[in-house]
Amino acid sequence: MKISARNQLRGKVKKVNTGSVNSEVIVELAPGIEITSIITKASAEDMDIKPGNEVYAVIKASNVILGVDH
Amino acid sequence: MKISARNQLRGKVKKVNTGSVNSEVIVELAPGIEITSIITKASAEDMDIKPGNEVYAVIKASNVILGVDH
Amino acid sequence: MKISARNQLRGKVKKVNTGSVNSEVIVELAPGIEITSIITKASAEDMDIKPGNEVYAVIKASNVILGVDH
Amino acid sequence: MKISARNQLRGKVKKVNTGSVNSEVIVELAPGIEITSIITKASAEDMDIKPGNEVYAVIKASNVILGVDH
Amino acid sequence: MKISARNQLRGKVKKVNTGSVNSEVIVELAPGIEITSIITKASAEDMDIKPGNEVYAVIKASNVILGVDH
Amino acid sequence: MKISARNQLRGKVKKVNTGSVNSEVIVELAPGIEITSIITKASAEDMDIKPGNEVYAVIKASNVILGVDH
Repeated sequence: MKISARNQLRGKVKKVNTGSVNSEVIVELAPGIEITSIITKASAEDMDIKPGNEVYAVIKASNVILGVDH
Repeated sequence: MKISARNQLRGKVKKVNTGSVNSEVIVELAPGIEITSIITKASAEDMDIKPGNEVYAVIKASNVILGVDH
Repeated sequence: MKISARNQLRGKVKKVNTGSVNSEVIVELAPGIEITSIITKASAEDMDIKPGNEVYAVIKASNVILGVDH
Repeated sequence: MKISARNQLRGKVKKVNTGSVNSEVIVELAPGIEITSIITKASAEDMDIKPGNEVYAVIKASNVILGVDH
Repeated sequence: MKISARNQLRGKVKKVNTGSVNSEVIVELAPGIEITSIITKASAEDMDIKPGNEVYAVIKASNVILGVDH
Repeated sequence: MKISARNQLRGKVKKVNTGSVNSEVIVELAPGIEITSIITKASAEDMDIKPGNEVYAVIKASNVILGVDH
């Protein structure tokens, strides 16, 4: 499936923390650039999300806030 | 301000497309890794968002979807 | 790409309203069940979103609010 | 209350999975069309969300991503 | 309709800026406490959103980021 | 960091409920005006979120839904 989210960043799963309903997944996009995702535990299992696997971090542009120093 | 969003990725503004209410801002995190943000035009002006400026792309972990090939 | 969003509802594009930065897309999931999406105009063009085309409405479970009468 | 979210889809609760802070609620919109919501456990209790009850799945249009095959 | 969003803050519309697809609505919750909402222009018209009208700002708890000074 | 989210409301932490992956944080903006946030437990710990501390509730304008009575 091709999707409308502007942001589809390729990376590798670094760590998975599993809760009762949700899982926290840390993805490395490049050395030193990591992104964290919270998805349902059910989705993480369906997609076989585990350390080392290649994934895409998909983010809708309207969910990206910008910050500046100062 | 220090904020709770897990994801605060440093980058440089590459392009800004301004609409009537919103602006689309393209940020380069690293060579070949870009992230697009839609923020209000008023915010973009307040923060002086323009090409070349350093910014952070801030994303709540619950807004990051994961995708896998196949 | 297979994605982690729990909700991937198949439908048909019914109408597209194009703005300066965003487009509003109305998708019919079944007779009488419609869902509206706002995506960037750039995404709508990349994906050739137009009336009659088959699409999926993809929604992260954490973005679905529940309501009850009363 | 009448709300601004474009998407207010009527359905019936099919299943509830309760975690420590959040609950996952599966709603059937029509035969074969289901939508999953993650809400706080406190909200699920306040609203008496349980299988068989009628609910609305409420989604802001800016939170609906579109996907296409290929 | 009673809804699951934890946050339903009563206020008064202070200003509306109308774009081509979206409208920006500024709501005063209390003297000096304002909240800004972006909704579709179609929703703003359906709900007769205009200065002086009483509204609720409805926000899902998972969409609230926390910040601290330093 | 100065951020693009239009809504940055100052308040005081009233209560924290800690789950396995997420924490629910209740913030008092003014007497009788509370806002609830769900953030990752890791963020809550990093930021030392506990009752009595001053925080900002940060919300992107596109995540604020409006409601009206009737």
